Amino acid sequence: MEQVREILDKALAEGRTGLTAPEGREICQAYGIATPGEGVAGSATEAAELAAELGFPVVLKIVSPDILHKTDAGGVLVGLKTEDEVRDGFERILASARAYDPGARIDGVQVQQMVGGGHEVIIGAVTDPTFGKLVAFGLGGVLVEVLKDVTFRLAPVSDEDALGMLDDIKAAQVLRGARGAEPADRGALAALIARVGRLVSDFPEIVEVDLNPVFADANGAVAADVRIIVGEPPAQVTRLSREVILGQMNRIFKPRSVAVIGASGETGKIGNSVMRNLINGGYQGQIFPINPKAPDILGLPAYKSIADVPHDVDVAVFAIPAKFVPAALEEAGRKGVAGAIMIPSGFAETGNVAGQQEIVEIARRHGMRMLGPNIYGYYYTPENLCATFCTPYDVKGSVALTSQSGGIGMAILGFSRTTKMGVSAIVGVGNKADVDEDDLLTFFEQDDNTQAVAMHLEDLKDGRGFVEAARRVVRNKPVIVLKAGRTAMGARAAGSHTGALAGDDKVYDDILRQAGVVRAPGLNDLLDYARALPVLPAPKGENVVIITGAGGSGVLLSDACVDAGLTLMDIPPDLDEAFRAFIPPFGAAGNPVDITGGEPPSTYANTVRLGLTDDRIHALVLGYWHTIVTPPMVFAELIAEVVAEERARGNVKPVVVSLAGDTEVEEASEYLYEHGVVAYPYTTEKPVAVLGAKYRWARAAGLLR
Amino acid sequence: MEQVREILDKALAEGRTGLTAPEGREICQAYGIATPGEGVAGSATEAAELAAELGFPVVLKIVSPDILHKTDAGGVLVGLKTEDEVRDGFERILASARAYDPGARIDGVQVQQMVGGGHEVIIGAVTDPTFGKLVAFGLGGVLVEVLKDVTFRLAPVSDEDALGMLDDIKAAQVLRGARGAEPADRGALAALIARVGRLVSDFPEIVEVDLNPVFADANGAVAADVRIIVGEPPAQVTRLSREVILGQMNRIFKPRSVAVIGASGETGKIGNSVMRNLINGGYQGQIFPINPKAPDILGLPAYKSIADVPHDVDVAVFAIPAKFVPAALEEAGRKGVAGAIMIPSGFAETGNVAGQQEIVEIARRHGMRMLGPNIYGYYYTPENLCATFCTPYDVKGSVALTSQSGGIGMAILGFSRTTKMGVSAIVGVGNKADVDEDDLLTFFEQDDNTQAVAMHLEDLKDGRGFVEAARRVVRNKPVIVLKAGRTAMGARAAGSHTGALAGDDKVYDDILRQAGVVRAPGLNDLLDYARALPVLPAPKGENVVIITGAGGSGVLLSDACVDAGLTLMDIPPDLDEAFRAFIPPFGAAGNPVDITGGEPPSTYANTVRLGLTDDRIHALVLGYWHTIVTPPMVFAELIAEVVAEERARGNVKPVVVSLAGDTEVEEASEYLYEHGVVAYPYTTEKPVAVLGAKYRWARAAGLLR
Repeated sequence: MEQVREILDKALAEGRTGLTAPEGREICQAYGIATPGEGVAGSATEAAELAAELGFPVVLKIVSPDILHKTDAGGVLVGLKTEDEVRDGFERILASARAYDPGARIDGVQVQQMVGGGHEVIIGAVTDPTFGKLVAFGLGGVLVEVLKDVTFRLAPVSDEDALGMLDDIKAAQVLRGARGAEPADRGALAALIARVGRLVSDFPEIVEVDLNPVFADANGAVAADVRIIVGEPPAQVTRLSREVILGQMNRIFKPRSVAVIGASGETGKIGNSVMRNLINGGYQGQIFPINPKAPDILGLPAYKSIADVPHDVDVAVFAIPAKFVPAALEEAGRKGVAGAIMIPSGFAETGNVAGQQEIVEIARRHGMRMLGPNIYGYYYTPENLCATFCTPYDVKGSVALTSQSGGIGMAILGFSRTTKMGVSAIVGVGNKADVDEDDLLTFFEQDDNTQAVAMHLEDLKDGRGFVEAARRVVRNKPVIVLKAGRTAMGARAAGSHTGALAGDDKVYDDILRQAGVVRAPGLNDLLDYARALPVLPAPKGENVVIITGAGGSGVLLSDACVDAGLTLMDIPPDLDEAFRAFIPPFGAAGNPVDITGGEPPSTYANTVRLGLTDDRIHALVLGYWHTIVTPPMVFAELIAEVVAEERARGNVKPVVVSLAGDTEVEEASEYLYEHGVVAYPYTTEKPVAVLGAKYRWARAAGLLR
Repeated sequence: MEQVREILDKALAEGRTGLTAPEGREICQAYGIATPGEGVAGSATEAAELAAELGFPVVLKIVSPDILHKTDAGGVLVGLKTEDEVRDGFERILASARAYDPGARIDGVQVQQMVGGGHEVIIGAVTDPTFGKLVAFGLGGVLVEVLKDVTFRLAPVSDEDALGMLDDIKAAQVLRGARGAEPADRGALAALIARVGRLVSDFPEIVEVDLNPVFADANGAVAADVRIIVGEPPAQVTRLSREVILGQMNRIFKPRSVAVIGASGETGKIGNSVMRNLINGGYQGQIFPINPKAPDILGLPAYKSIADVPHDVDVAVFAIPAKFVPAALEEAGRKGVAGAIMIPSGFAETGNVAGQQEIVEIARRHGMRMLGPNIYGYYYTPENLCATFCTPYDVKGSVALTSQSGGIGMAILGFSRTTKMGVSAIVGVGNKADVDEDDLLTFFEQDDNTQAVAMHLEDLKDGRGFVEAARRVVRNKPVIVLKAGRTAMGARAAGSHTGALAGDDKVYDDILRQAGVVRAPGLNDLLDYARALPVLPAPKGENVVIITGAGGSGVLLSDACVDAGLTLMDIPPDLDEAFRAFIPPFGAAGNPVDITGGEPPSTYANTVRLGLTDDRIHALVLGYWHTIVTPPMVFAELIAEVVAEERARGNVKPVVVSLAGDTEVEEASEYLYEHGVVAYPYTTEKPVAVLGAKYRWARAAGLLR
């Protein structure tokens, strides 16, 4: 540690950003990272002894301050395999060097272990603006450079996580010895990754590390080349304690009173919409309209200033132009308001960064939390609270949704209403000048009204804070994230190879997965996952069985299962026989179980019941085919009944359905959904995708180990 | 050619499936495929001369019938770089061999060009059960073996197509000289691929070819190892001429008369549903119910047998059990029926392969075409023809849909009805015992009522016939294909490396793309593409511009554009300025053009009109954000109007819209769709995905070159 400290201090004192190769090697050695053995020999005998000690083959290089181009001077020999060859080589190098420059001072000959066998990999570390110190791992050569086959983790990493990284690249098989190659020493590689992670965590001023290439064979891993870049350590993030955040968030989500700054009686004004939504939404706490001119608004007495309100105020909703905000916020702070809901725009999003900074400082000075600015407000249905200028929403349920953009917030509202999605909260975070996803996750974690969280985000202010909060929540509730800006891989100035590989989205993808978050590929997926995940029970194992009336749907559902990373159960003979007892002789058991198209409702009921009762099966995917014999609503009612009966008996498993048929299947899908069976018409992909999302969460929560 | 013929005949006569290495090399030479030069030398001088001729470095190998293990005998030397080294090497090898076995007969020393520089690639050919002869290309080593980075084309391939293959692998950059490597001689590689394609096309009994590895550098490409497998050539497919197929299909889709074999007056019977659908669907030709017992059915005179019908019959719809089909089909054939619509199941799909073969033969004997068996029937809306037991469908339009599965057919029907999708035809192909996708494509190609074709398929009977037909259609109309069974990569017995790489789906994917087909990833995509593609005009260039009221949607729409392979236009300064004139100062021009959320309808109208009139822009993606200032229907009506006005002025460009807002955006989306603007609520992905599909077709049709 001291040794590393000294090297870094020296480099920084000299204004250098790059360390020299010997400095890099010294740091590696201090952290137990193997580099090729080496030494300087003054005689042929010394060289031979050194080589024997290091292990063959070796490389010899002339050491002379006067010879810059060693190769031109005949000063480099590679691949020497015996002591004799080394002795001979020593003399040849000396002779060549003297012939090249008779006056050159010669300090000796460097003897270096020659590495290059086994697998070529790259291990590195970068300092990410969002997540801070990250370690990276990939296979060397074409695989990382052309195919970008690399994986990232937050540093430091445990040895176990580092081992996981080895399997997280597309070409993972290679290290396990694909194509008859020697398998790499996985333990040594993982240890090396973990050491790099410790190094950059111990010394934040190390901004990038490149061990490239690292040669790994069955006996270990050696970093053949080391590049270390130093610089400004990332700024320390100050975080509030969980208790403090909870105290604040509970006052914001369950306020006893709400003031509306800029409340108005005039239709069309934001301050009027907010007032009406609070009142019509059914909020039971006290509502204080603040307006310097009106004596009362919508039947409630109004106050000239929040200071005049004769009660405590938990939340102040701002519905005034940006320029009036600072003074009003100052008053709110003095009043002891817990949460300022900052609807106004005209701050950082329009370039007014100073204005935003000003209100952040006011809020901070008073220990007040601020949501926004530039938001539509927020909903919390358990309190009938619609503190927003949008329309009220009253379908209570267990998913909390947040969005960074107002447009996405509106899409959440419309989708929720049309699908009757049960919601606990909808929160706009806008510019995230203060309250961000970490704060909200901290609240939703302990909120019994919330069983799943779905977040649209474009960036994270404090990536590590988010990961920490998400990891805690994920243990009990799914966290679904739509990360926008996936493909905008900002060109980033990078001094190292690893740095150049750290495209924004690859980093987000790896780190969000590491946090146990379920990433939604698009907006509609976010909404569908948000609606379905609280409805689906958690699976208890990986065995998925498809039961279908339409062979064609069965094939497409199988495709979808593979796409969603689900495991189609290998049906054991006794279970196969049990299914066969219910289906026609030309139907196909196995998986999918194809009951064939002309079957009566009882065939669906019998096979689904078997699927629910057999303990070896953990989830069901149903394919329904509209026929006269089993019409859509008959199927829907029957399946809902069978699922409910079996749930009552303790056979609680996720069931999803794809319905193929005429328009009546739409009503049947809705009926099923309302009865706890996730169902969609005209798609074989969506039911399986949401089941896949549930599985991703169940795995992250450790339910399937 | 003769030389190759002889080698193959000899191998086949000897019952061999594999050719020897010298046989393989000889075949390669006959086709101009470079293999390492070689020869046998009897003396050191001869060896040195031979080596100079072949080019250095070379490999020397002892040639002796008595020495099996050449290396053990010191009989192999590699990497000899000069004539002296070769001369010296010749003597050393001879000495070693003699020392190893003094009695061994020695025929000389083989001198072989040593290859191995540049890039290692694999070039091969396989015989696919669906598509016949295919050529394959991939990068050698880990890339093909672990990452399966390989591409296929129908053999033979043109040099131009072969060049395209080099860019079709993920690691294509490598051959262009990524990482400072020497670029490969692309012409030589393409020529080599083309030659392999010619070879397997000329000699169908060559079932697999493996050139692995091929070494390619800047000066050429040499096949270092050759493996050729011979066997049964694939069966010749007999195809009807286009004229014959058209004559048949026109009688089937535009029949003057339809007989219903098994017509019934009894509700619930298939023969009753078919009759009612024909009558209620509004079919204007003659309808002849066939039923041995009833004098009339639904008011129409019935006949005991089709033979009794006193008119010509174009189409006979079968609604009788399988066991009665052969006799009735025979009668239909004698009657001169053009098309037998074989609704009954109970044939190959239940294992009754012989029964299916029997009816195929009956149909063939009479020159009658058969659709099915095991289908729901077919619809052709221009003739008001609903020859099906499902419900009638009457929304006329320009997309023809076909499905191999009845369940998928029902999903097509339900989706069509609920989205009011205009359809020309819906056709069930079921077991495809006779009529298949090729026949239907041949009809739809020349059918003016059809402007796009969407097909669900699980397999192809004649892959080459399909590709041929699809290529013709694609020139004028999009062909969309949902290939089910993507992930069921059947384990295939393969004697070569290339064979093992030819997983079903990879082959389908490459060949369908080569045919210009737009592949839909799932059922819902198939339906959405089918609905949207005829509505969207074809783009005239690659420049896509996003105009959005919600910054958040803009980011997601950009992500979606990259996912869909669309090019976000780099907006030139004058155009940027023109957009800026319409938007607030804190709005963002560039691309997306962010008009910001609070804007009135005129801002949408002005920017969209600019996008439609500027010739450098080829397609628009709009992001709408629901506000009080611009409510959803105001936006929808205005955009529909602007688009219609500009279309009337000749500014015809595809416009797609993503609407974020409360439930009113659903009605607005429908309104827009009905007015030729493809629009979806609550999703940023779908509008861009369908635009991407339109672009894929436009590129395949050569419209964007």
